[in-house]
Amino acid sequence: GATPKGGVRRLTLTDLDLQSRDLFRTWCEAAGMTVSVDAMGTMYARRPGSDDSLPPVLVGSHLDTQPTGGKFDGALGVLSGLELIRTLNDLDIRTEHPIEIVNFTNEEGSRFAPAMVASGVLSGAFTLDYAYARTDGEGITIGDELERLNLKGDFPMGGRPLKAFFEVHIEQGPILEESGTDIGVVTHANGQEWFEVTFEGVESHAGPTPMDRRKDALVGAAKFVQAVNDIGHAFQPGACATCGVIEVYPASRNVIPGRAWVTVDLRHPDAGQLASMAERVQTEAVRIAEEGGLTAQVESVFAFPVTAFDEACVGAVRSAAAELGLSHRDITSGAGHDAVYMARVAPTAMVFTPCIGGISHNEAEDMTAAWAEAGCNVLLRAVVQTAGITRE
Amino acid sequence: GATPKGGVRRLTLTDLDLQSRDLFRTWCEAAGMTVSVDAMGTMYARRPGSDDSLPPVLVGSHLDTQPTGGKFDGALGVLSGLELIRTLNDLDIRTEHPIEIVNFTNEEGSRFAPAMVASGVLSGAFTLDYAYARTDGEGITIGDELERLNLKGDFPMGGRPLKAFFEVHIEQGPILEESGTDIGVVTHANGQEWFEVTFEGVESHAGPTPMDRRKDALVGAAKFVQAVNDIGHAFQPGACATCGVIEVYPASRNVIPGRAWVTVDLRHPDAGQLASMAERVQTEAVRIAEEGGLTAQVESVFAFPVTAFDEACVGAVRSAAAELGLSHRDITSGAGHDAVYMARVAPTAMVFTPCIGGISHNEAEDMTAAWAEAGCNVLLRAVVQTAGITRE
Repeated sequence: GATPKGGVRRLTLTDLDLQSRDLFRTWCEAAGMTVSVDAMGTMYARRPGSDDSLPPVLVGSHLDTQPTGGKFDGALGVLSGLELIRTLNDLDIRTEHPIEIVNFTNEEGSRFAPAMVASGVLSGAFTLDYAYARTDGEGITIGDELERLNLKGDFPMGGRPLKAFFEVHIEQGPILEESGTDIGVVTHANGQEWFEVTFEGVESHAGPTPMDRRKDALVGAAKFVQAVNDIGHAFQPGACATCGVIEVYPASRNVIPGRAWVTVDLRHPDAGQLASMAERVQTEAVRIAEEGGLTAQVESVFAFPVTAFDEACVGAVRSAAAELGLSHRDITSGAGHDAVYMARVAPTAMVFTPCIGGISHNEAEDMTAAWAEAGCNVLLRAVVQTAGITRE
Repeated sequence: GATPKGGVRRLTLTDLDLQSRDLFRTWCEAAGMTVSVDAMGTMYARRPGSDDSLPPVLVGSHLDTQPTGGKFDGALGVLSGLELIRTLNDLDIRTEHPIEIVNFTNEEGSRFAPAMVASGVLSGAFTLDYAYARTDGEGITIGDELERLNLKGDFPMGGRPLKAFFEVHIEQGPILEESGTDIGVVTHANGQEWFEVTFEGVESHAGPTPMDRRKDALVGAAKFVQAVNDIGHAFQPGACATCGVIEVYPASRNVIPGRAWVTVDLRHPDAGQLASMAERVQTEAVRIAEEGGLTAQVESVFAFPVTAFDEACVGAVRSAAAELGLSHRDITSGAGHDAVYMARVAPTAMVFTPCIGGISHNEAEDMTAAWAEAGCNVLLRAVVQTAGITRE
C-alpha cells in the first residue's frame, strides 16, 4: 500500500490488507508461530509457553491504515511483537506464559466506522452482529468482506483468561520528541465526550438587514468555537477541546446564516475534569445563544470513559525503560487505541515512542530507527517480566 | 409558480417563466401597449408619448423569483407599472414622453449567476457573450434557454437615450414597517465588497495535540467572523458586514482544522466608509492569523461601487409621497436591484414599500394592499411628473 509521497494506503479488509496479512503470517510461521484468526478477522500468532495452559501475554496493534496514512501507525506495534519473538528465538528464551502477537481488524475506522471495532467486539463493547453490519461508503459490510477474504475464523474471541496486553505505538503528538524523551509510559487513555451543537437564528438578506436586528447563527457559533478552545486551555493539564466540523445554512454569501452546526471533541485523563468540561460546553452554548437571540441545542453523541491502564503492566514498562537507561516519562493517550478496549478484558499497558513533529494520520508520518529500537526493547523486557522466563 | 406554502417558485427562463411573460404580455396588450423583447429576453411594454420621438420613461423590475421566493420581490415593480398605465388609460391622460414597462430577465441570479445580468448587459457592465455563456447547475446556458423559449428579440438594448427609470420594490428589510413609514425614498444603493478569506494552520489529531501547540485554523476563522460582525457595528449608520459561508478542512470531528475558508459581504452607502471597512477586514485577518500562528490570505472577489440615484428622480419620488400625504423617509438600498445598473445609463430612482417582518427571499414574504397601493400612487405621480402631461 505504499504511496508516492512515502506513506501507506492500506484500508482494512481490502485485497492490499489481505496481502499484508499473508506476509505477516509467513513471517510469523517462519519464526515458529501458529497463526489463527477469530470471527472478526483479527489474527493471533502464538508462541507456546513452557506451560502452555497458562493465559497468554498478548502484544500487538493493527496493520490497517488511514486513507493517506503513514508507515508506523499500527504496524510498529505489530512488528515490534514479531521482533520480540525473533529475539526470544535468537536468545533461545522460552517464556512460561505463551505469547500471542495480535493484528486487530479495522482499528482505523476510516473505511468502516466505528474505529477499533474488532477489539471492541473482543472486549464486549460491540456485538458481533453490530460489527458485521457496519458498511463502507459503497454499502459493503464488514461481514461481506470477511466472507470474501475468507477471514471469518474460529479462534476464540473472548471467554479465555488473558495474562496481559501490551501495545507499542507512536505518540501521534509532539510531547516526547520536543522534550527529548525516548519512551512514553502510558498511564491512562483520556476519556472523550463528543457533542453536536446547533445554533438557530433567523436567515435573512445580508444587504437590507441592519446589524442590530440580526440573529446570526454563525456569529453565535463563532463565539462558541472560541469558548470551546478556551475550555481546553482552562482545564490544563491534560485537556483537549476541539471543534472539527462547522456547517452553516443556507451557506450563501449574501444571506445571514440562520443555522450553524458545530462538532465538539473533549478529552481529559480525569473523569471529573472531563465532566466539568462537558458541563461548561453546555453552559457556554446556552449563554452565547441567549446573548445573540438564538437557540442552542446541545446533543451528546459519543462518550468514552477515562481508562486507567493496569498498574503492574505500566510498572513493567516504566522499569524496562529505566533498566535500559532510556529517558522516559508518564504520558496519557489522547487518541483511541485497541489497548483502550483491551484494558476491559486484560491487564493492559502501552509504550509510546516519539514521532517526528508529532505528525500522524498523514503520509509524512515518520520516526527514527533508534526510537523504534527503544520501543521494541522496552516491550521485550516488559513482556518477559510479565510472561516469566524458563531457562532451558 | 405558486408553492403550497404561499410563495412562488418561478425561476428565470423556465416554462413557468414563459407562462408569466405571456400573461404579462396579454395584460399589456389589453392595456393598448406594444410589447418588444431585447437580445437578453428583457420585455418592454410601450405606451407611446404624445411626442413619441422623446426618450421613454422606463418603469419596472423583474418577474423571476428565488427558488423558494415570495409573491412581491420583483413582481410588485412590474405590476405597479401596469397599474400606472391602466390608471393613465382610465383617466385618459397622455404623457409627453413614452412610458415603457420593463421586465428584466434573471434578476435573481439563483438559476444563473450573476444576479441582475440583463440590466447589467443593458448598462454595459457585462457583454452579451458573457451573459449568454452563464450556465445553470445542469450546464444549460442562458443563450440556450433564450433560443429554446424564442426570447432572443431585436429590441435595442442600449444606444438610445432614456428619460428616466423608476423601480418600485419591497424593502426586504424591517426599517419601514418598524418605523411605521409608508414609503422609502431610496437615495443610494450601498456599495458592496466581497472577500474570500483563507486561514491556514496545521491539521493534527484532536487527541494527542496539546492545546498550546495547536495552529487551529477554525479558531482563527471564528475570531475573524466576530471581527467582521464588530466591523459592521462599528461603521454605523448604514454598514452591514456578514460572513455567509464557512468551510473547514479536513472537516473531521477528531482532527484540528488545518484550513478554514470564510466569505465576507461588506456594504455601506458611503464609499469612503466602505473602503475603511474593507481595510479593517484585511487588518483584522492578518492580526488574528499572527495571533494564532496561522497565515491568512484575503482575496477581494467582487466589488460594486456606491450608487447615488438621480437627484431629480429621487426628488420626484419624495414630492409624490409628500403630496399624497404618505409618511416617508430617505433610505438606502442594501440589496442589489436592476435600478442599480440602470442608474449607469438613465436618471434613476427607487420607491421602497414596507414588507412584513422585513422577510424576503422566503415563501413567507408578505405585504399589505395599502402599502402596495401607496407604492403605485407614488410611482404614478413621479412618472407623470417626469414624463410630462399633455391634456387632450
